[in-house]
Amino acid sequence: MAEEELALFSHDETEDLSFQPDVVVRPRDPAIVPEILALAHRLKVPVTPRGAGTGLSGGALPVQGGIVLSLDRCDRILDINTENMVAVVQPGVITQVLQEKVEEAGLYYPPDPASRGSCTIGGNLAENAGGPHAVKYGVTSDYVMGLHAVLADGTLIRCGGARRKDVAGYDLTKLFVGSEGTLGIITQATLRLVPLPVERAVLLASFPTLRAGLEGVLAVFRGVTPSACELLERDAVEAAASHLRRPVPVPGAEALIVMEVDGFTPEEVERQMMAAGERLEGAGAVEVRVAMTRREREELWALRAATGEAVKAISTYKEEDCSVPRSKIVELVLGVKAIARKAGIRTICYGHAGDGNIHVNVLRMDMDEQKWQEHLPAVIEEIFELTVSLGGSITGEHGVGWTQRRYLPLQFGHAEMAAFRAIKDALDPDGILNPGKIFPG
Amino acid sequence: MAEEELALFSHDETEDLSFQPDVVVRPRDPAIVPEILALAHRLKVPVTPRGAGTGLSGGALPVQGGIVLSLDRCDRILDINTENMVAVVQPGVITQVLQEKVEEAGLYYPPDPASRGSCTIGGNLAENAGGPHAVKYGVTSDYVMGLHAVLADGTLIRCGGARRKDVAGYDLTKLFVGSEGTLGIITQATLRLVPLPVERAVLLASFPTLRAGLEGVLAVFRGVTPSACELLERDAVEAAASHLRRPVPVPGAEALIVMEVDGFTPEEVERQMMAAGERLEGAGAVEVRVAMTRREREELWALRAATGEAVKAISTYKEEDCSVPRSKIVELVLGVKAIARKAGIRTICYGHAGDGNIHVNVLRMDMDEQKWQEHLPAVIEEIFELTVSLGGSITGEHGVGWTQRRYLPLQFGHAEMAAFRAIKDALDPDGILNPGKIFPG
Repeated sequence: MAEEELALFSHDETEDLSFQPDVVVRPRDPAIVPEILALAHRLKVPVTPRGAGTGLSGGALPVQGGIVLSLDRCDRILDINTENMVAVVQPGVITQVLQEKVEEAGLYYPPDPASRGSCTIGGNLAENAGGPHAVKYGVTSDYVMGLHAVLADGTLIRCGGARRKDVAGYDLTKLFVGSEGTLGIITQATLRLVPLPVERAVLLASFPTLRAGLEGVLAVFRGVTPSACELLERDAVEAAASHLRRPVPVPGAEALIVMEVDGFTPEEVERQMMAAGERLEGAGAVEVRVAMTRREREELWALRAATGEAVKAISTYKEEDCSVPRSKIVELVLGVKAIARKAGIRTICYGHAGDGNIHVNVLRMDMDEQKWQEHLPAVIEEIFELTVSLGGSITGEHGVGWTQRRYLPLQFGHAEMAAFRAIKDALDPDGILNPGKIFPG
Repeated sequence: MAEEELALFSHDETEDLSFQPDVVVRPRDPAIVPEILALAHRLKVPVTPRGAGTGLSGGALPVQGGIVLSLDRCDRILDINTENMVAVVQPGVITQVLQEKVEEAGLYYPPDPASRGSCTIGGNLAENAGGPHAVKYGVTSDYVMGLHAVLADGTLIRCGGARRKDVAGYDLTKLFVGSEGTLGIITQATLRLVPLPVERAVLLASFPTLRAGLEGVLAVFRGVTPSACELLERDAVEAAASHLRRPVPVPGAEALIVMEVDGFTPEEVERQMMAAGERLEGAGAVEVRVAMTRREREELWALRAATGEAVKAISTYKEEDCSVPRSKIVELVLGVKAIARKAGIRTICYGHAGDGNIHVNVLRMDMDEQKWQEHLPAVIEEIFELTVSLGGSITGEHGVGWTQRRYLPLQFGHAEMAAFRAIKDALDPDGILNPGKIFPG
């Protein structure tokens, strides 16, 4: 492979980081993965697994060189079994491709990261991806029933499967999900499917203040279980609208909630929609607009979906992925604003407020590079200290990867870090699997 | 403690096994657990954790003597938070007590093992308990968001919490659940709660053959998601009815299905009930009877609940806990019958057929002790080989513990067993935590 080709595998969607691999291996058949790892193990060469390279914490970056093992070509859906309500897939299947196939069978695979049109199930498993529908349906790990994974020495292990219940042995399946390729390379997954909710409705609620919007989110959950509950602050809405060359949906609103309910009958959806509307108005919404048509619905979702790219486009940025218990979102977001104000920087907050997972974008604006580089780590640290003090996590769905590892000790003490290290050393004693990730330098 | 008092902690509900502990420690405050383990660690004394002693695989038996650490007195519910929909509990809380408190707050904690009136959350976590409602709601591990656990050396670790999303570090929470006290002692848990379905309905369907009953189970799931779907074969029904001194509900039926649907409106429940009834009739049910009143509903559940005790009462028995993909229940149960016929023994099958988890009771009847002891291991092995060949597990909800460890290699190969062992050795290098469990001798 030429240098230029290797360069395609040197970066992901995380800032502008780049690490050149020495070798890229792109098998079409996952059955070869044990051999690749056995060889790497003998030669003590680092192996960095990669899906579509859409990660936001640098998980797929070969920071110590060596082999990038790209599984994007292992993209077969091996089975969709409606009787057992499971799908069996190779890791390179694109999330949305799976979702569409599953829906054809009247079933539903809910995890839907923003990149679902291009990201792979393997990457979703590695980072335990979430998305807007996690608030009702849970994250990737809630849908993984079984795995094939190749350990650092090339040994293939099989755990779980299409059986719904299994308490034999340790739950390696759940341990491997979210381990970011540091414990083994997943070569096959059995995923749980659920009945497809055939009815859904989306509403847009606008609020005069950010605080009112956040409190609106909490109000909804007093009696309603939305299938998505996203919050966008004014700057996020404006960035997204401008990105899409559309007018802002509700001029002057300081916060918008995009909320969805789903179900199996129109009555069920209508009942929830009414209840949610009442609660949002009670919390001070100035307008609650129900998307009546499929097109209106898609337009609202398009606005939400454009936010990440849009915010990225307007400034050098760093996106954080704070996750707190839902009841703490007001303190989190207003606390972030206070930290930013003090530091003289700008933040834009948006995301999965319904499950307490807020993306905090820290924007440089016109601060010069040197001052920015000096200021940034302390600001991020302060934001994460606040997050952890509220019972939260430094990452809800993006992973620790390469960029967040220095912050991990803000969330965990020596005891937990030692337990992580003991498990890593037990399964990968030479440290060849995705080295440099998760653990601080 | 006198010998007689120690003897109370020498057995659980597993057959008639008994192992005397040297010491029993029953703290009222889990904060002392790190000190107890630090001491045990220094002295290299085995520690066997215990909840209410209702286990069915000998998990709480001190098979190597030493300390039994009974957490039944650590029984405080620390918090029920309706905003975050979580409960924070000590391990000694009785499952049903928690469920009732949670229901008072309009919420629901679904895992409901048969022993829920006496078993503890700590035991449920250790064995990853299931129950009838797992078919719709999942098992204990699906409800555990965070843990405090004390490692073998007395170190306290805290993982997860009331945050819905967290991908920082390895998922120790899920690793500890179902690890049967061999990796750490759980001293606190944060449990996920869901909205309480306020409407429910139960039906009883009777079938002319066992096969038709099993196929009836499969038929239901083509369009309906029951909140429970239990199957009892004729002998199980007769044993339970006789145990309760009641008439058999449908004389002559070879199999009964006890099915429940739940929801938030009467219409939703009725719609599902109608759909289920149609499917059951289509599958050959001779009668489908809907329990109209609360009393009728409770009577049906009482029949199901009495089955375990009833079958136990009629013969020396051994209950197995086969779990297969739902689509394989016909092959599993009819296969078990064929194995039993060939061996000249009797089996009674019943349980959570909707999620593929069938309790297979092997009855001695009038076979003499010596012949029974000679025959039994080969019969059990054959049943488990069939289970595994169908993509199943040797235990769906009872755990491996002490009695099933010899069968674990039927389900896992060298690679998986070595991975389990590596994790065990990493976290408990001296092997003092619940020694003798899970791993074959």
